[in-house]
Amino acid sequence: MSYFANVNTIKYEGPDTKNPYAFKYYNPEETINGKSMEELMRFAVSYWHTFTAGGTDPFGEATMIRPYNQLTGMDLAKARLEASFEFFEKMDVPFFCFHDYDIAPESDSLTETFKNLDEIVAMIKDYLTTSKTKLLWNTANMFSHPRWLSGAATSPNADVFAYAAAKVKKGLEVAKELGAENYVFWGGREGYETLLNTDMKLELDNLARFFHMAVDYAKEIGFNGQFLIEPKPKEPTKHQYDFDVATGIGFLKTYGLDDKFKFNIEANHAILAGHTFEHELHVARIHGMLGSVDANQGDPLLGWDTDEFPTDLYSTTLGMYEILKNDGLGSGGLNFDAKVRRGSFDPEDLFLAHIAGMDSFAVGAKVAQKLIEDKVLDNFIAERYSSYTEGIGLDIVEGRTDFHKLSKHALKLDNIENKSGRQENLRAILNQYLIDAYRG
Amino acid sequence: MSYFANVNTIKYEGPDTKNPYAFKYYNPEETINGKSMEELMRFAVSYWHTFTAGGTDPFGEATMIRPYNQLTGMDLAKARLEASFEFFEKMDVPFFCFHDYDIAPESDSLTETFKNLDEIVAMIKDYLTTSKTKLLWNTANMFSHPRWLSGAATSPNADVFAYAAAKVKKGLEVAKELGAENYVFWGGREGYETLLNTDMKLELDNLARFFHMAVDYAKEIGFNGQFLIEPKPKEPTKHQYDFDVATGIGFLKTYGLDDKFKFNIEANHAILAGHTFEHELHVARIHGMLGSVDANQGDPLLGWDTDEFPTDLYSTTLGMYEILKNDGLGSGGLNFDAKVRRGSFDPEDLFLAHIAGMDSFAVGAKVAQKLIEDKVLDNFIAERYSSYTEGIGLDIVEGRTDFHKLSKHALKLDNIENKSGRQENLRAILNQYLIDAYRG
Amino acid sequence: MSYFANVNTIKYEGPDTKNPYAFKYYNPEETINGKSMEELMRFAVSYWHTFTAGGTDPFGEATMIRPYNQLTGMDLAKARLEASFEFFEKMDVPFFCFHDYDIAPESDSLTETFKNLDEIVAMIKDYLTTSKTKLLWNTANMFSHPRWLSGAATSPNADVFAYAAAKVKKGLEVAKELGAENYVFWGGREGYETLLNTDMKLELDNLARFFHMAVDYAKEIGFNGQFLIEPKPKEPTKHQYDFDVATGIGFLKTYGLDDKFKFNIEANHAILAGHTFEHELHVARIHGMLGSVDANQGDPLLGWDTDEFPTDLYSTTLGMYEILKNDGLGSGGLNFDAKVRRGSFDPEDLFLAHIAGMDSFAVGAKVAQKLIEDKVLDNFIAERYSSYTEGIGLDIVEGRTDFHKLSKHALKLDNIENKSGRQENLRAILNQYLIDAYRG
Amino acid sequence: MSYFANVNTIKYEGPDTKNPYAFKYYNPEETINGKSMEELMRFAVSYWHTFTAGGTDPFGEATMIRPYNQLTGMDLAKARLEASFEFFEKMDVPFFCFHDYDIAPESDSLTETFKNLDEIVAMIKDYLTTSKTKLLWNTANMFSHPRWLSGAATSPNADVFAYAAAKVKKGLEVAKELGAENYVFWGGREGYETLLNTDMKLELDNLARFFHMAVDYAKEIGFNGQFLIEPKPKEPTKHQYDFDVATGIGFLKTYGLDDKFKFNIEANHAILAGHTFEHELHVARIHGMLGSVDANQGDPLLGWDTDEFPTDLYSTTLGMYEILKNDGLGSGGLNFDAKVRRGSFDPEDLFLAHIAGMDSFAVGAKVAQKLIEDKVLDNFIAERYSSYTEGIGLDIVEGRTDFHKLSKHALKLDNIENKSGRQENLRAILNQYLIDAYRG
Repeated sequence: MSYFANVNTIKYEGPDTKNPYAFKYYNPEETINGKSMEELMRFAVSYWHTFTAGGTDPFGEATMIRPYNQLTGMDLAKARLEASFEFFEKMDVPFFCFHDYDIAPESDSLTETFKNLDEIVAMIKDYLTTSKTKLLWNTANMFSHPRWLSGAATSPNADVFAYAAAKVKKGLEVAKELGAENYVFWGGREGYETLLNTDMKLELDNLARFFHMAVDYAKEIGFNGQFLIEPKPKEPTKHQYDFDVATGIGFLKTYGLDDKFKFNIEANHAILAGHTFEHELHVARIHGMLGSVDANQGDPLLGWDTDEFPTDLYSTTLGMYEILKNDGLGSGGLNFDAKVRRGSFDPEDLFLAHIAGMDSFAVGAKVAQKLIEDKVLDNFIAERYSSYTEGIGLDIVEGRTDFHKLSKHALKLDNIENKSGRQENLRAILNQYLIDAYRG
Repeated sequence: MSYFANVNTIKYEGPDTKNPYAFKYYNPEETINGKSMEELMRFAVSYWHTFTAGGTDPFGEATMIRPYNQLTGMDLAKARLEASFEFFEKMDVPFFCFHDYDIAPESDSLTETFKNLDEIVAMIKDYLTTSKTKLLWNTANMFSHPRWLSGAATSPNADVFAYAAAKVKKGLEVAKELGAENYVFWGGREGYETLLNTDMKLELDNLARFFHMAVDYAKEIGFNGQFLIEPKPKEPTKHQYDFDVATGIGFLKTYGLDDKFKFNIEANHAILAGHTFEHELHVARIHGMLGSVDANQGDPLLGWDTDEFPTDLYSTTLGMYEILKNDGLGSGGLNFDAKVRRGSFDPEDLFLAHIAGMDSFAVGAKVAQKLIEDKVLDNFIAERYSSYTEGIGLDIVEGRTDFHKLSKHALKLDNIENKSGRQENLRAILNQYLIDAYRG
Repeated sequence: MSYFANVNTIKYEGPDTKNPYAFKYYNPEETINGKSMEELMRFAVSYWHTFTAGGTDPFGEATMIRPYNQLTGMDLAKARLEASFEFFEKMDVPFFCFHDYDIAPESDSLTETFKNLDEIVAMIKDYLTTSKTKLLWNTANMFSHPRWLSGAATSPNADVFAYAAAKVKKGLEVAKELGAENYVFWGGREGYETLLNTDMKLELDNLARFFHMAVDYAKEIGFNGQFLIEPKPKEPTKHQYDFDVATGIGFLKTYGLDDKFKFNIEANHAILAGHTFEHELHVARIHGMLGSVDANQGDPLLGWDTDEFPTDLYSTTLGMYEILKNDGLGSGGLNFDAKVRRGSFDPEDLFLAHIAGMDSFAVGAKVAQKLIEDKVLDNFIAERYSSYTEGIGLDIVEGRTDFHKLSKHALKLDNIENKSGRQENLRAILNQYLIDAYRG
Repeated sequence: MSYFANVNTIKYEGPDTKNPYAFKYYNPEETINGKSMEELMRFAVSYWHTFTAGGTDPFGEATMIRPYNQLTGMDLAKARLEASFEFFEKMDVPFFCFHDYDIAPESDSLTETFKNLDEIVAMIKDYLTTSKTKLLWNTANMFSHPRWLSGAATSPNADVFAYAAAKVKKGLEVAKELGAENYVFWGGREGYETLLNTDMKLELDNLARFFHMAVDYAKEIGFNGQFLIEPKPKEPTKHQYDFDVATGIGFLKTYGLDDKFKFNIEANHAILAGHTFEHELHVARIHGMLGSVDANQGDPLLGWDTDEFPTDLYSTTLGMYEILKNDGLGSGGLNFDAKVRRGSFDPEDLFLAHIAGMDSFAVGAKVAQKLIEDKVLDNFIAERYSSYTEGIGLDIVEGRTDFHKLSKHALKLDNIENKSGRQENLRAILNQYLIDAYRG
């Protein structure tokens, strides 16, 4: 049986094609800096947005037409899974990601919930033996059910903390079972609504305790995947504790967890925190903590997480620039934590949207690689900071100076000349590289 | 004498050149939809940002290195003017724009201020006899001096209102003298800081009275240029009365001024009001009120008017799309109300920034024209709204129906089928058109 | 049977009580400027937030514990209605408001939907014969069902337009049947997601056609309530056509509808549009178009409609100031378009939240009335604008001047002296009035 | 000679007075939790906003009428100093704060700049022998002069780094000389404009090197004041490295500086970073790093640092709540980093604005203290988190559990009951405490 019979496997047809169901720029076999595009970008499909979500918004009901809409319960879960592997194959993606709740229905009984999960996990394991598509990461949904309304590991209710522990314990076992390369924590409810009723110190301490126990348990069962924290500033909780990468670094260092975790960085979360996507990648990278990416984009004129498929080529270029500078994402990947717009409700839109996203990152990779090869930014930066490679500048960098020597140096300076930052010209060059990338 | 001796006249060298001081995409003679790029885009240099401003910001002093920085008073004004026409010529731009205060110093005596102005205006008139560059528009600076602190035409002080009238009267005479094609009103101080001390009704009434008097005076002296209002939502005044185009339309209609004014639309002001650049252009266009453009861009992550040179090719493409659909800008143009970054302080940056902006709009024009030629969006939209071309839809559009007939129709509907909006795919197509535009 | 047996009727106990289930400041019988608080404020309960909504958010399921949660279909609808009138009585509110969909379930068949509606409407009519609580306004939900995904009156699909007409036709009949004092249009889906696929001109024209037909039908059936448009800038639709009051004024004037409609102004929508609550009220008021109020508050640090119960006394004071200056709200009222936080899930929270909101507006009314009585702002403003009461200022206001006379006046001015706006002091006075209001 | 002859010394007259030049709520001798208000709040006047700044904004010139406006150079500096101590005395404030550049003019020669500084510092030292007002903190202005355009300690130019070192070295000597209780770093230019031209890693490393050298030098000269970092997210630099408190904690821990620095927290900077004032205070407090406060407020509808005098009683109450919970500010204080509005240009406005701010914090202190005394929030929070005081909750907090035990516990849970967060009711109680505070 086919769930997406209208759409054939998506192939690379090159930039000239007008076929909407073809890759124009993403060529899995094309080499970028010694890696194939497939190896470099490690695209993943998000199970929740693509197969589970229905297109609701705060004012409207589900709109998505899906080939299994008439089913419920475990039947629905199984049909979705079948459909998902058909989709993975047709999109030719190497990875997927899921929350426990995406793949199997939760029950009032945790025992039964786990049973449901086990059944689906067994099916996935089966698929994995034959499919090219692997599990990039899994995670636990600890935000949808009412029990999580005030947090999971940061809940004021110790029973909820325990329940969260049970879910993550199970999640780690699933991760090991399915060979997940990472395990992700997104703390959508780990934060507070108002300080009037919150003990932030206890909540942060508990969150750290929880992470330590997770690390211990992973070690115990031999799960060697990378732990990832996904920062987000607000929504659904007014203030989330993992506000952005910098906040996450502070938290991990405070609680002695900074060698155990890296970051899963989402473009849309970046702008909600007041940052660019590339900023968050850069901060993580220079701290050695760039783990994986939730590839999407937000609308800077809207104040919530729109989770759009990434099509902004500036963002994909500057994002891929950081990733290439990081020598890739290691065990991470580019997961499309992105949903088709509510008005893009046809099953075909799922393909069109993934093509849009994969092509956009492919263009970004190509432009970024050319910028790096030509040392466009590297040379400009090297020249701009050249004063730190000799004299007083080198003394500063090598720790051979102090306020006495520096002050003496300053008092002798006649005039200080700065260098223009050439921001407008650098942006024009970026445009030229973008336009040139496919001029052959 | 040359003020910009380091830079030669900027020429079109095509997309392959690596010469930073050349146009890569802006070719004044290239034809877009039957007009040369020069005729279509009608680029203008802003006198204030390019020659007068020094790079101050709320926390820092002037940084700009300009070849007349050592001068003051009328000597400075004259040197700036000389430099400006050298710059216009080297940039090969057809237009420029100014505020009175940009070109000639103000004095405590209004009589002397006008005398200064007259002297410089006479010089400009002279330049205009030989230069290709014309005056797109002029305006009066009614926001810098302390007298304007609570408004000009909306000041609580009737003397200030009178002073503003004197300045605009003079401005209209200058506009006529120099053959300006438009006269602009930007009401940076026309608004309020707090309702606690404000009579908004009186202020709005006064603003309308002021505009009516300006219209009358222009008629009296035979100035036939287009009047333009430039919307902006906030900054420097917390709430400005010309918040956005839609607000402006309401105001003009309320006071019977809607056939006298069009809009001068600034990209950065659009995003401060929560809109895209193309939204503001579109709203003005479908109301027949698209007059001119302040071509720049803002930073959506910052909350103030950064007035950056436009380099975002999405924004220039979608902006040019509206302009082409409007069959050009009529007597308006693309004025670079944009300033080099504070760190781009070399005179050379002025050239590099204008090249960046002109090239970006040239790319935008080319991509937009191709989208229009191929009817990419037109066809999609025609199909999406096709139900209004027949049956009940046509009845609606042609005014042949009412709630009775419509309700009867609805009660017979079995199922309503909507069409996917295909937003992701449309964005991917936009990317493809962008990349294709220069693939030959 | 009682749905809220734990809570007794809420009574005014005065500012000293520590009883959470009592009004501290809202005393329905207390007189403010010749009206009782009840007559002045005309509080209404929103059916949707209070009885229908479950506390879902974009990442989480319903959390609200409600005494009819176990029911479905018409049984649920009837139980809700019983509960609602018990609630109205216990809260002693004079009004309520609803969308058709809040009170009766929709079916796939419009005929059956209307039948459901008729059944509940008949029940409501019954309640109204004995209850003190009246219907402030009703409206049609044209945003939840998938058919509305691209708009109702602005849908690209003419069938959807017709369906919307059928719903509003029915809504007007219900309004007449139940004696509603107003009929509201909130166009949550009337707008666009992207210009790439939108014909804005056609959509605006259709919206106006729709409004004209609604006006005609109301006249036909003899419904004399006030029509109200409720502006909102974004969410759920990226750009909504009724962005804010000023935009609405422009639209209504463009289409000759400005004498038929007033505005229903929501505090939270105001801040999403970049305005204060009092700004929107003020703009509507000075245009004679202040109709009714959706009393809630937003979180200025979050970018979406949080619809919180209003507790900010600055906002309620400055809001009531506008309402008192408007000599009340006429046929409008203060409708709590507000929802308890997702974490405030007990039925008791509904009472506590309404008490919080009603008390906050009562304080605001009292402080505002005192400010008006003492002419605190009026006198300051009169003095600040006094130059328009004589001489050149009076000439301006009375239309006896022109640019010639004004310019002559200005040229003779030696020095212009402005007056300090005293913003800090005015705010301190506002604080003092707030603190003094209950010092006896 | 008197600079502010129109205004007498401000005295406490109590809440009934209508005298604008009197404290209504700030009574320096009144006791709050065992400290006088003066000791608890430690108000400081900011030299820059109050005496140096002129009221310019990005679009307008200075408007402030100051009694020394006619002077220049060192004459101006001396007159300002005289005026400032007259102001301190009339306001009866215990502290003031300054940047080097506020008190003495800078010259092209650093040697002369230091000479100017020495001369004024000697005068200040003299004043301090007789005045009650002390120096809360000083700092170096490393953002106004063009040399700082790309940073001070993070400049790409090593000479600028050295110059900054010379300034801070001098600043520490001045701090010691004048008995400053703290030394502040606000890095307005320490950040980046665009990643295209930035080496963030080098810049952060250099910033840390600079701080270490400052710490070493302070130790060397025996300056024992507290070092404070003042976070701010953007403006004037697009991204500042000290984005918020959480970011600062991460930075300080990364570079081994977390035991040397605390934070100087500004309310307006908090909202620019997407946080409330009380959030930033709370985060600093629970990390033991709450040092001092820049007491002002921002406008949440504007996107820049408006630095308004604090009059929002919610913000002052919740701010003082954190300060009281911190047992005061230690060597820190409440510094009015606030400027009168540009339209509040009379010298009298300086007094009125400081009265507004001091009274607002006094009200806040009183309300907060009452909330603490009555354990309003403490009891609610204790009850809400009570599950962590026994059973599995206590095991979690005391580190006696793991995922095995927790999972076993969870699997036995029948149903999890959360407690309502009562946010609306807590806000209503806050209002009641606010209104009650002065009901006697």
